[in-house]
Amino acid sequence: MIARLLQDSEAKDAARAACSERDVDEVLARVAWNVLAEPGDGVAGALIAELGPVEALRVATDADAVLVPPVTPPRALQEAIERWRPRASPQAVLDALHGAEAVRARLVLPGGALWPAAMDDLDVHAPTMLWVRGDAGLLSAEPRVAIVGARASSGYGDLLAAEFAGDLAGSGAVVISGGAYGIDGAAHRAALGVGGATVALLAGGVDRAYPQGHQSLLREIAVKGAVVSEVPCGTAPTKWRFLSRNRLIAALGQATVVVEAGWRSGSINTAGHAASLGRPLGAVPGPVTSATSSGCHRLLRDYDARCVTTTAEIRELWETTVGMPQGDAAADPEQVRLRDALSTRTAVPAQELARRSGLSVTRVEALLGLLELEGAVARSGAGWRRSVGAA
Amino acid sequence: MIARLLQDSEAKDAARAACSERDVDEVLARVAWNVLAEPGDGVAGALIAELGPVEALRVATDADAVLVPPVTPPRALQEAIERWRPRASPQAVLDALHGAEAVRARLVLPGGALWPAAMDDLDVHAPTMLWVRGDAGLLSAEPRVAIVGARASSGYGDLLAAEFAGDLAGSGAVVISGGAYGIDGAAHRAALGVGGATVALLAGGVDRAYPQGHQSLLREIAVKGAVVSEVPCGTAPTKWRFLSRNRLIAALGQATVVVEAGWRSGSINTAGHAASLGRPLGAVPGPVTSATSSGCHRLLRDYDARCVTTTAEIRELWETTVGMPQGDAAADPEQVRLRDALSTRTAVPAQELARRSGLSVTRVEALLGLLELEGAVARSGAGWRRSVGAA
Repeated sequence: MIARLLQDSEAKDAARAACSERDVDEVLARVAWNVLAEPGDGVAGALIAELGPVEALRVATDADAVLVPPVTPPRALQEAIERWRPRASPQAVLDALHGAEAVRARLVLPGGALWPAAMDDLDVHAPTMLWVRGDAGLLSAEPRVAIVGARASSGYGDLLAAEFAGDLAGSGAVVISGGAYGIDGAAHRAALGVGGATVALLAGGVDRAYPQGHQSLLREIAVKGAVVSEVPCGTAPTKWRFLSRNRLIAALGQATVVVEAGWRSGSINTAGHAASLGRPLGAVPGPVTSATSSGCHRLLRDYDARCVTTTAEIRELWETTVGMPQGDAAADPEQVRLRDALSTRTAVPAQELARRSGLSVTRVEALLGLLELEGAVARSGAGWRRSVGAA
Repeated sequence: MIARLLQDSEAKDAARAACSERDVDEVLARVAWNVLAEPGDGVAGALIAELGPVEALRVATDADAVLVPPVTPPRALQEAIERWRPRASPQAVLDALHGAEAVRARLVLPGGALWPAAMDDLDVHAPTMLWVRGDAGLLSAEPRVAIVGARASSGYGDLLAAEFAGDLAGSGAVVISGGAYGIDGAAHRAALGVGGATVALLAGGVDRAYPQGHQSLLREIAVKGAVVSEVPCGTAPTKWRFLSRNRLIAALGQATVVVEAGWRSGSINTAGHAASLGRPLGAVPGPVTSATSSGCHRLLRDYDARCVTTTAEIRELWETTVGMPQGDAAADPEQVRLRDALSTRTAVPAQELARRSGLSVTRVEALLGLLELEGAVARSGAGWRRSVGAA
């Protein structure tokens, strides 16, 4: 297949136009892989890692290719080749490149200057490449926080998503989300609203606005932020591609926050990826009577998500390692007991204070001395009064 | 002091009437200790554990008592004796006994048949005794769940406290709480409402209805459940005694659930005791916009509380050890991709399904065979259709 692509001058020109920083054969091979393999295909990832995209493509698509060395288990490879071959069409590669050209999408290849290193945590399941409309530099800018949640969100969820995303984007964070209705849309819009940076990771091609109702939102994100996909232009979003896309959101976010989610929401899937990648995971609690918060509570219960209720708590997800419980400086128990025994109205003798508080007279007198210095108590005749306004 | 008490036939009669199962000198010594020491006094606890209540009282209150063996550090003991002496009044012991008699409170002493073993987890800080109006057997009945929360609760909190307490008490659990306004009251009332068992642990004497507005509620609990305190009849609730009382709620509950709590609510203190006693701790989430849920969210963040949203989840606190995340049985990724490629309207040939799904034709045919057996797909001409109604 690679040989045929390299004989096609139209394909070569399109590849050069889409990505000038790499050799044309590598660009064409990457796009071919992107057409051949579904997102997250680990056999493809392993083969490309072993042989490089050009040689791997030869092995995958040329009938007479010789497997040396046969590092990938031969049987898995044979099965994979069977599933790649039905898609091995030079025309599909050309279509994808033309599609990218039409929307001025940039090709971001592994190992390139714009390739987000965070994706490499996905190992052989990393994307074979990314298609990016807008500012590809945002994929590596820091900090990056994924804010995701239910499509069928409530007003409560929309409000919080907007508040968090607006605060975070306003202070320089890149807000990553999935471009969907509901929480995703609220997060993107709030980031744009404060003139901040936001990235939408789509399940279909970047030339397809999905959902349709977000056509103008996605267009705006493509201009002011970035719209990104790991599947070629022209590809329809499918359930599998949504599930796969979720791992990219989790990988790209330095922390993931689920604002609102139903029990089986796709956001649970994103959260699961974040957790298994070791990324900090936050969940926003809500009323237990709200179905759209049940997924968040599930994350708190079963996924060890951290409960986040403010923008500051979200920032803590990546800014600090988990610290010790922030207990209040415990009040001295003896002082509490002595204060209980005092009155603001009546002067009470130390002897009586000792009886009331269960402390010794000596101790009471020592504590009264301290409290007097603090202005918390005052002598009055033969006794002591608590000063008005003192705790 | 003990000698003087034993010379007082009125005191002896009152002690016999209040607690017939123990020697009169032990009963009197216990009540004397209860009058002398504030709740949780560890020096008193250690001394009683070493010498027994009668001999410990002699050491504490008789000027000529000889300390053999001096197991408690002499300095700590000397300081403690100084704080106990101002309260060493036989009349106070008699008053406490008469107070108990007036409200028919029972004396429950450590080591007795009715003594709740759970209290012994508090070690030297365990109560020197308990005063109980009502059914003291409830203190050892199982399961026991503490349901606590803010006095200034919201309708949301009251509703959930009532729902949880009603469900739990209705299925045989003993609902423990603190008798306060708000969440505590809602929990007690719901337990009574279903004819279930409930225990109110007060910070003051059991003869004092606190808060005043709960006079009739506490009276009803004393008849149908139990009203319990570790301080003598006639004792006023103070801030110190509230804080101390909280440790008893935490110790008595086999699990503690905080339904609603402000950031600095006393329930946080109860929860802290539960956590440090190793008792399972649950917190009910709520809107992040609600101040009365902020303490619960704090417990989820900083105290490792478990997020509980249903009665079943509360039961899990004590019924099961923490299990593995209950993930859904993951759908086979290849099946998901094949289902994406199928249509309910148009029959699609296996070759085309392979191209759409990115699976090999062999694999597609194998999966179609399985799905056909399940009734999820049907052959149609040269292709396959997804059956209507199949997921």
